[in-house]
Amino acid sequence: MNILISNDDGIQAPGILTLAEVAREFGAVTIVAPNSPQSAMGHAISLGKPLRLYKEKLADGSWGHACNGTPADCVKLATGVLMKENLPTLVLSGINHGSNSSVSSIYSGTLSAAREGAIQGIPAIGFSVLDHHQAADFSQYKDILRKIIFQAISQPLGNGNLLNVNIPRIPFEEIKGIKVVRQAKGRWVEEFDERKDPFGESYYWLTGKFLLQDTEADNDETVLKAGYVSVTPMMHDLTDYSRLEIVKNWEF
Amino acid sequence: MNILISNDDGIQAPGILTLAEVAREFGAVTIVAPNSPQSAMGHAISLGKPLRLYKEKLADGSWGHACNGTPADCVKLATGVLMKENLPTLVLSGINHGSNSSVSSIYSGTLSAAREGAIQGIPAIGFSVLDHHQAADFSQYKDILRKIIFQAISQPLGNGNLLNVNIPRIPFEEIKGIKVVRQAKGRWVEEFDERKDPFGESYYWLTGKFLLQDTEADNDETVLKAGYVSVTPMMHDLTDYSRLEIVKNWEF
Repeated sequence: MNILISNDDGIQAPGILTLAEVAREFGAVTIVAPNSPQSAMGHAISLGKPLRLYKEKLADGSWGHACNGTPADCVKLATGVLMKENLPTLVLSGINHGSNSSVSSIYSGTLSAAREGAIQGIPAIGFSVLDHHQAADFSQYKDILRKIIFQAISQPLGNGNLLNVNIPRIPFEEIKGIKVVRQAKGRWVEEFDERKDPFGESYYWLTGKFLLQDTEADNDETVLKAGYVSVTPMMHDLTDYSRLEIVKNWEF
Repeated sequence: MNILISNDDGIQAPGILTLAEVAREFGAVTIVAPNSPQSAMGHAISLGKPLRLYKEKLADGSWGHACNGTPADCVKLATGVLMKENLPTLVLSGINHGSNSSVSSIYSGTLSAAREGAIQGIPAIGFSVLDHHQAADFSQYKDILRKIIFQAISQPLGNGNLLNVNIPRIPFEEIKGIKVVRQAKGRWVEEFDERKDPFGESYYWLTGKFLLQDTEADNDETVLKAGYVSVTPMMHDLTDYSRLEIVKNWEF
């Protein structure tokens, strides 16, 4: 395997080291990641801004490539420049600090790196742990990563597939298993924190609470709360097929 | 109707004026849009950066609200602060300069503003014209906007619906009609333009060509090429249901 790793927490984020360590069991690893945190960057790409790519030493002594763009830019630069002659056969992203379950899959920079791989026809997996603490011990989850990567390699899903993996914030020993589930219905409810700057002008901090709007149990949010790892296959065809036939009947 | 309008080309982009002009036929209009171009911002939101919101006069003499964030931030600020007591009943985004068909629906800032409305349960429509020229005459397409907004209001699609509307770059008289179609299979193939800065270091401009990978005709790319307006209902549940059952059979 020729494995490309990226993330959205930045090239020096600890999660990337754990992911690379496991990935090296499966093949050669190339790291291309943003040179600054890019959380919640969605599937942004840089138009009208030149991109830089340079080597940077990571905390475990290995080398990666830092990029001044978004997570999706990193994957584009990897496949379009750095690995052009030797394209990746697997794209991994993460391990992210914090959940990318439910609707967060749309805001997530972690998943956008993986999705960019999927769009290019390369199998891709995004990993997230529901723990925002910088000191979070991601290495305890290595066996989970290993099992999921192994299955994804062994049983190819065909062109354009992306797996969204979320790991609950509990010790490895307490994790009950891995469940394959759909994205939960839900959304973030904003609560803006309005403040005044020293000049009397208002500014706003975006804060919010997640609102689960799902009544069934077979979704990522629910299994994560129950102590399971969630795995959700995702796509980038956004067509709402359930409404397509309805709208076809409109008379314009 | 209480209509919120945003875009990704920035609050002073001409497309927003045409869209607001048509929208006022249907109700009260509030404009909240980025204070700088935000093309290809995907569904990015601003975490860790305070947001500003201020009134700004537009070229037609009307007033809008500018925000220093992304298109999705604009909609969040509108529903969370500005219109909190009088929530929008329709979110419109655009008119965008350039196509948001096929996989561009994922990179698009225009659609992320509309999608943010849909996530919040507000019906939403994103409008794009396949014309990057700043002097593009968007006003000729007013009747198309009018017809689509009228249908969307008259025949509600229920919670979380988003329509992606693309208009071909041909004179209004030559447009053959409106077709409701799915997102085309396709992707952008990167061609990075590598240059050297005055200090001898490389930098890269992201350029690319769209590669249509669809063999059927019932998609947005194909009908746009044939001279039709495309309307695609879109969703924000990214679950790949076609692969969900397959992955459920994996043994971890």
